[in-house]
Amino acid sequence: MPEKFRRKPYELFYWPGIPGRGEYVRLALEVAGAPWIDVVRERETGMDEMMALMDASEVARPSFAPPFLRDGTTIVGQVAAILFWLGPRLGLAPTPEKGALWTHQLQLTIADLVNEAHDVHHPVGMGLYYEDQKKEAARRAEEFRTARIPKFLDYFESILTANGATESKPHLVGKSLTYADLSLFHTVDGLKYAFPKATGRLLKNRPLVSSLHAAVKKRPRIKAYLASTRRQPFNEAGIFRHYSELDR
Amino acid sequence: MPEKFRRKPYELFYWPGIPGRGEYVRLALEVAGAPWIDVVRERETGMDEMMALMDASEVARPSFAPPFLRDGTTIVGQVAAILFWLGPRLGLAPTPEKGALWTHQLQLTIADLVNEAHDVHHPVGMGLYYEDQKKEAARRAEEFRTARIPKFLDYFESILTANGATESKPHLVGKSLTYADLSLFHTVDGLKYAFPKATGRLLKNRPLVSSLHAAVKKRPRIKAYLASTRRQPFNEAGIFRHYSELDR
Repeated sequence: MPEKFRRKPYELFYWPGIPGRGEYVRLALEVAGAPWIDVVRERETGMDEMMALMDASEVARPSFAPPFLRDGTTIVGQVAAILFWLGPRLGLAPTPEKGALWTHQLQLTIADLVNEAHDVHHPVGMGLYYEDQKKEAARRAEEFRTARIPKFLDYFESILTANGATESKPHLVGKSLTYADLSLFHTVDGLKYAFPKATGRLLKNRPLVSSLHAAVKKRPRIKAYLASTRRQPFNEAGIFRHYSELDR
Repeated sequence: MPEKFRRKPYELFYWPGIPGRGEYVRLALEVAGAPWIDVVRERETGMDEMMALMDASEVARPSFAPPFLRDGTTIVGQVAAILFWLGPRLGLAPTPEKGALWTHQLQLTIADLVNEAHDVHHPVGMGLYYEDQKKEAARRAEEFRTARIPKFLDYFESILTANGATESKPHLVGKSLTYADLSLFHTVDGLKYAFPKATGRLLKNRPLVSSLHAAVKKRPRIKAYLASTRRQPFNEAGIFRHYSELDR
């Protein structure tokens, strides 16, 4: 059944209050114009439903953590796996096996960068507050800014170059938009929020990554989404956090 | 072409000297009896080949980091993506879309645990030595031992239970061995090496995870592999490191 005739919306289950990892799924659903519900934000019973769906005594295939997506009777967890499921359904990934897996491989590499961005403000433990690990975070942030962000951005710049991307057509895979483009956009957006000085400096020498970020941001559906209340702003409870002492 | 008539071996590219993330791929190849080469260890030119294959000016789809696998003209990086590629080819995953993705989702969750295990000894920066971040590692290790390992092991125990696994047939997915079983085996093996006291204690109350570990370990091909020189022992340059001060 073509997407436009779907009657049942996709249901995204994720913590409310932050863009977080759920945002990678939201952007794919939004850019495709797919019907979807941000369950915990939109249904009064959403949080209870989400917790129940993570309980192996209630469902056969519970996810370890949000986000997860329900599509009819299928529930898929892990951002990269959700996007692998949605990619062909939303026209956001090549369908042949090799192209689909390459897009997925890029998503997994973006996920590695996202994990590292999170660990900067939680180097010692995710159960502790940032305030209890500020000294350690300062050490970790330095390596992240000076070695890790550049290494990842260089990689994606080289992939864009190898794919024949141009400033007007900046795609990671093939000649059209994939979820990997959306995910790199959001990750760069998060880095710009969290580390504006370092990221701004680094982007100057990565013209294709910069173009990709700008191009995704001005796509009509993304622009409309970013201006809507469905979009939650970056904040200091999420993955990308701005602590000025960690930026330089 | 059935695997047993393959003439060209799979080529695994990974850093020599540690089991590392490459081990998840090695175990899948070994248990299936597939022909494969550990390129950097077995070919004099291996390291140069590996570096060249990560260079976007030489190949169209370079990986960000090892391990990656070459299968004829296809190169796949990221452990979870490699196993997603190998799964159906080696008979180590269900082939229907939903079952394949569920197995993959479990692999991605195992990968999250593996990342956290690595970060315990490198909380402040992967470019620094453990000796330069011992104090921070001690803080992180406490949370890992008391909150994170138990949470992950409980999750996998619950998945085994929901799948109807028994102590004699301890499988995460369906009724036969998948790469998710192999990966959970190796991760538990690594945790037993790195945190023998904490892991030993925790496994006592997770009988199905313990059974899975024991059952994989005594499979004939795994047993033969573990006793061979192809297997590299855990050590303090890898992901799972034993520092007695971090165990309790």
